[in-house]
Amino acid sequence: MDTKIPVGILGATGIVGQRFVQMLEHHPWFEVAWLAASDRSEGRPYAEAARWKLKTAIPKQVAEMRVAPASPEGAPKVIFAALDASIAAEMEPRFAEAGCAVITNSSALRMQRDVPLVIPEVNHDHVKLLECQAWRKKSGGFVVTNPNCSAIGLVIAVAPLQHAFGLDTVMVVTMQAVSGAGYPGVASLDILGNVIPYISKEEEKMEEETRKLLGQLNGSGIVMASFGMSAQCNRVAVEDGHTESVSVKLKKKAKPEEIIATWNEFRSLPQEMKLPSAPEQPVQYMTPSDRPQPRFDVEAGNGMTTTVGRLRPCGVLDWKFTVLSHNTIRGAAGAALLNAELLKVQGYLG
Amino acid sequence: MDTKIPVGILGATGIVGQRFVQMLEHHPWFEVAWLAASDRSEGRPYAEAARWKLKTAIPKQVAEMRVAPASPEGAPKVIFAALDASIAAEMEPRFAEAGCAVITNSSALRMQRDVPLVIPEVNHDHVKLLECQAWRKKSGGFVVTNPNCSAIGLVIAVAPLQHAFGLDTVMVVTMQAVSGAGYPGVASLDILGNVIPYISKEEEKMEEETRKLLGQLNGSGIVMASFGMSAQCNRVAVEDGHTESVSVKLKKKAKPEEIIATWNEFRSLPQEMKLPSAPEQPVQYMTPSDRPQPRFDVEAGNGMTTTVGRLRPCGVLDWKFTVLSHNTIRGAAGAALLNAELLKVQGYLG
Amino acid sequence: MDTKIPVGILGATGIVGQRFVQMLEHHPWFEVAWLAASDRSEGRPYAEAARWKLKTAIPKQVAEMRVAPASPEGAPKVIFAALDASIAAEMEPRFAEAGCAVITNSSALRMQRDVPLVIPEVNHDHVKLLECQAWRKKSGGFVVTNPNCSAIGLVIAVAPLQHAFGLDTVMVVTMQAVSGAGYPGVASLDILGNVIPYISKEEEKMEEETRKLLGQLNGSGIVMASFGMSAQCNRVAVEDGHTESVSVKLKKKAKPEEIIATWNEFRSLPQEMKLPSAPEQPVQYMTPSDRPQPRFDVEAGNGMTTTVGRLRPCGVLDWKFTVLSHNTIRGAAGAALLNAELLKVQGYLG
Amino acid sequence: MDTKIPVGILGATGIVGQRFVQMLEHHPWFEVAWLAASDRSEGRPYAEAARWKLKTAIPKQVAEMRVAPASPEGAPKVIFAALDASIAAEMEPRFAEAGCAVITNSSALRMQRDVPLVIPEVNHDHVKLLECQAWRKKSGGFVVTNPNCSAIGLVIAVAPLQHAFGLDTVMVVTMQAVSGAGYPGVASLDILGNVIPYISKEEEKMEEETRKLLGQLNGSGIVMASFGMSAQCNRVAVEDGHTESVSVKLKKKAKPEEIIATWNEFRSLPQEMKLPSAPEQPVQYMTPSDRPQPRFDVEAGNGMTTTVGRLRPCGVLDWKFTVLSHNTIRGAAGAALLNAELLKVQGYLG
Repeated sequence: MDTKIPVGILGATGIVGQRFVQMLEHHPWFEVAWLAASDRSEGRPYAEAARWKLKTAIPKQVAEMRVAPASPEGAPKVIFAALDASIAAEMEPRFAEAGCAVITNSSALRMQRDVPLVIPEVNHDHVKLLECQAWRKKSGGFVVTNPNCSAIGLVIAVAPLQHAFGLDTVMVVTMQAVSGAGYPGVASLDILGNVIPYISKEEEKMEEETRKLLGQLNGSGIVMASFGMSAQCNRVAVEDGHTESVSVKLKKKAKPEEIIATWNEFRSLPQEMKLPSAPEQPVQYMTPSDRPQPRFDVEAGNGMTTTVGRLRPCGVLDWKFTVLSHNTIRGAAGAALLNAELLKVQGYLG
Repeated sequence: MDTKIPVGILGATGIVGQRFVQMLEHHPWFEVAWLAASDRSEGRPYAEAARWKLKTAIPKQVAEMRVAPASPEGAPKVIFAALDASIAAEMEPRFAEAGCAVITNSSALRMQRDVPLVIPEVNHDHVKLLECQAWRKKSGGFVVTNPNCSAIGLVIAVAPLQHAFGLDTVMVVTMQAVSGAGYPGVASLDILGNVIPYISKEEEKMEEETRKLLGQLNGSGIVMASFGMSAQCNRVAVEDGHTESVSVKLKKKAKPEEIIATWNEFRSLPQEMKLPSAPEQPVQYMTPSDRPQPRFDVEAGNGMTTTVGRLRPCGVLDWKFTVLSHNTIRGAAGAALLNAELLKVQGYLG
Repeated sequence: MDTKIPVGILGATGIVGQRFVQMLEHHPWFEVAWLAASDRSEGRPYAEAARWKLKTAIPKQVAEMRVAPASPEGAPKVIFAALDASIAAEMEPRFAEAGCAVITNSSALRMQRDVPLVIPEVNHDHVKLLECQAWRKKSGGFVVTNPNCSAIGLVIAVAPLQHAFGLDTVMVVTMQAVSGAGYPGVASLDILGNVIPYISKEEEKMEEETRKLLGQLNGSGIVMASFGMSAQCNRVAVEDGHTESVSVKLKKKAKPEEIIATWNEFRSLPQEMKLPSAPEQPVQYMTPSDRPQPRFDVEAGNGMTTTVGRLRPCGVLDWKFTVLSHNTIRGAAGAALLNAELLKVQGYLG
Repeated sequence: MDTKIPVGILGATGIVGQRFVQMLEHHPWFEVAWLAASDRSEGRPYAEAARWKLKTAIPKQVAEMRVAPASPEGAPKVIFAALDASIAAEMEPRFAEAGCAVITNSSALRMQRDVPLVIPEVNHDHVKLLECQAWRKKSGGFVVTNPNCSAIGLVIAVAPLQHAFGLDTVMVVTMQAVSGAGYPGVASLDILGNVIPYISKEEEKMEEETRKLLGQLNGSGIVMASFGMSAQCNRVAVEDGHTESVSVKLKKKAKPEEIIATWNEFRSLPQEMKLPSAPEQPVQYMTPSDRPQPRFDVEAGNGMTTTVGRLRPCGVLDWKFTVLSHNTIRGAAGAALLNAELLKVQGYLG
């Protein structure tokens, strides 16, 4: 590929927008050509408009780019979106209508009937749903979404089990990092030395998104997966990385070594196609008895690998285990980027 | 009562030993007359031997007391014990054999057939089990235990539900404070900005102790409660207060307002007898959607009230909710102290 | 005193406003009769308008009080103010003009020539400056201020040294708690596992307020103290309590035991008059080599005592030591409240 | 260079020992051939003996290496040492006596008259002092030390100022990371939400090591630098990175832009010789008003660059500023490694 595809970022100054900028810096297929954010930022150089919160430096080329108005005029045809849900609900359709491929991390349209909610390793076939979108028919534009940061780690961990053994029931309790709330997000007075047992709408998202992701494409819609599901979501004083205590009931008997092998050997289309952001190993099982931990494991596979550990029998369901996933990489910017790479190889990005 | 009962503290220099000293400072019935710890501390003034980690000052009278050898000779007849399990296993029988009432927070003997494991609000009748102890028959001494710091909050929260509606299944995921591991306990490098999804033997303790506590006294033993039970235990960067995400299945239908009323109205023997350390309300339901939280609620009822919140339907079992309990007060020193008060009014302390 | 003086709180919903509400709950002289905050809160019950962040419950009587418009009409004659500086600059004069005694924690008017900046233990005579205020002459109203939360601990610690030995030079580096920035204040992503070596305008405030506080009243103004002064301010991940590393040069030779005695024996008007919020001991020297620490010492004297420790020779100036002061009690609401008590006994509150 | 020099690590299982292992993994000149630690670890595979606390994986080749007895027999001729001072005092001379080049991070011998205390950018000529060592004369072995983790950042920041403008006085207050205390080191109960204003012997080390480092080699000894110096040391809840608030008095007038240029342009022998671990820029000035911060800047130059910021006039001395340095890389393992590289190019490693 000689020329990179120019892409735009909607909501470029937020925490997830910053991750898009960071992850696109050396991307072999895409390059940032356009940045938009709120009116307040418009016209200012990105380095000044964004309160940069990542540990690597702002890419030089992007630092001096001016923040454009958040409107499809003048925007590239491929748009990564990281807007608040309320704004996304209005903005994303406008860009799709104008012919843009909108690859979004926002929750606004995730559960809409004709909008694919996709994890490339899990349900890449759901992408086809975008053909049902009116925008697609009219202008060629479309919207593809990735799941919530707390749902994605869980789904990547249970999808191979569903495939190998069948899923009957999933229960999960999360301990979520503060970066999941964006910036400024969680006040330090609220979380230092504390646990907050509530994240607005998070449990609903986890439960319904998991069923859509693990559901079956059926013509113009998704038949939601029907297993029992329950989520409880907590916020803890961790910077990056959502840790989840999971219990599952499987349809078939499984030995622990079979389950662990199922995880470690799990590969899918992104690995086969060697998509640039695909982790070599989507799921990695950690053998030490006290892992995974955010401090050590959140960067596994450049933040794209979901780590799992502590598989043991559950006294109520069949098995329990711990899942860890990077919430702003695998759970946000990296998720959308991998979706874009999938769309590219499937021929949807022109 | 004119004269206070002299009591001793075994393991007086540790975190739980310090809590005993603190909670006994103004106790109307008991006064600290003897302190023992490891050989290293023997003979030194308590203020020097203990690395005091509580926010109130060391009580003057105790500060200057010399640490005695950990042996029944010269010890009072009522002993509060806060020893490591391995030492307790050897030491507690020695004191009981010598005629002491050993009221212990250690896990060593909790599951022993003839040793009562007691929460006064939940199973005060189990105390009778001590009559079966060989020590009791021989010297009058005995051992009474309280549960693990993670089990006690859970059991206090589900006991009224068991009584009112019947318990079919209990699942719990904990987020436990660092003080639960004693001092120095958890290294700061291990927990700053981290979650550790493992606490040695904690899940086993929670599961078996819960069944013993909610079991039925039957002559010389306890018939363990038979509901389904599963626990997952995590360590978080909180100083005091174990937060637990719980799901339960009940035997009878219950409306949410009935469950909440059951909690708020729950009273038991300690409240009726007005035991000095008994909280007015053993369980308090918090109505705000994001409570209980360690920062705000851990001191409820002077650390003796279990707070509960976020009652909502569970997609797999019937109900889910959050429980918070102070791990070194209700979960350790306060638990033993309330047991001692119960034993006193039942006539077991002479 | 049979009837309490009704007082109002301007900025009642913020962190310092909440401390006013908390500290006034059982006050023997004052009672909260009126609460005002931003337009957004107006007309709502206080419990709903304030996001209560303190560990004690909202006082019942205040919880249901409606938030009034922030205007002198209908307000009591004694006003505690905890507004942002920019709003205070406009609002406090309005209340003073209308005849109110405005006792404020805001920085807006602290350095104004005719406005007393007062710590009752240090410079209670500066109160007389209010007689020079035009408001006072016109309507009887006036404004009295207390210092910045980082200046007050330092000044309380060095004032007795100034008196006993003379002050030549003061250098201070602070490690300040997040509650000093209000709520939501410091974002958790900014401070978890971090130090921020900058607090806007804080160093300037410390330097100039210290000189005014330790200056001499001279007719209608204050002759600023002339010693050398330098402050560096840092934010750390502590909830409450500003820790300060101080070096001083004294005019007279002093032995360490003399300095310690000077601190421990320091008493002033508030102690002599037994003002209700005055700590028994304004300065307390901690002998252990690693104290004071926020965890253990911030609540000393109900948060009104400044703790000092680690006195040792300085290789450049004469002495170095550590100071700790509660930033929202002694450094804000408690400071203003003690000022109000001083004004009351001096006859300024009618 | 075809063959790498085999090196040994004394104290290989501790935090600094682990950093040696990590930094040597891909080193172009050295390779780990031997590991020793306490008796407890002897004979076990390194991966099992060390409780690995770094975020990168244990290098494969080292993971399976057996921990050797801590004795010169069988050890390579180049030894990196990271032992506790009390053990180092006995062990390092034994290895030097046996002909080893001991390049150590321990404080044991730093202030010994004939032992070089070296920062290659600052005083590489001090290395010659090793020729005075009796070990050197007898067996060819010697000991070279690097400074304390809190001294090194300070000295790297003030050395260019000394050279350009002359140093009259240095005052510093530190806020030090918990990793500086090793593992398990600081208990979480001691540091969560806290500041500890004391680190045993740290202030003495900072003051005397700074004077030796900035002193002049004079035949068989160092003439200590004579400027005024005072240090205050605090521990804060940061994982890696010591932040320091510094004030200095210079001998010559300097403009701020001259000082900043002096820092940014500072280069020395390690940069000229392109030593493998030398940072391109030893000192980097950060222009944003709230930097450097551990979260963002501790990894600058792979942890080998000292970042400086907030240069502004000091009301007492001339200038004040903030310094940040990675305490286990630039302040420990990286310091020793750079010393070894210096020794290699100077021909001392055979």
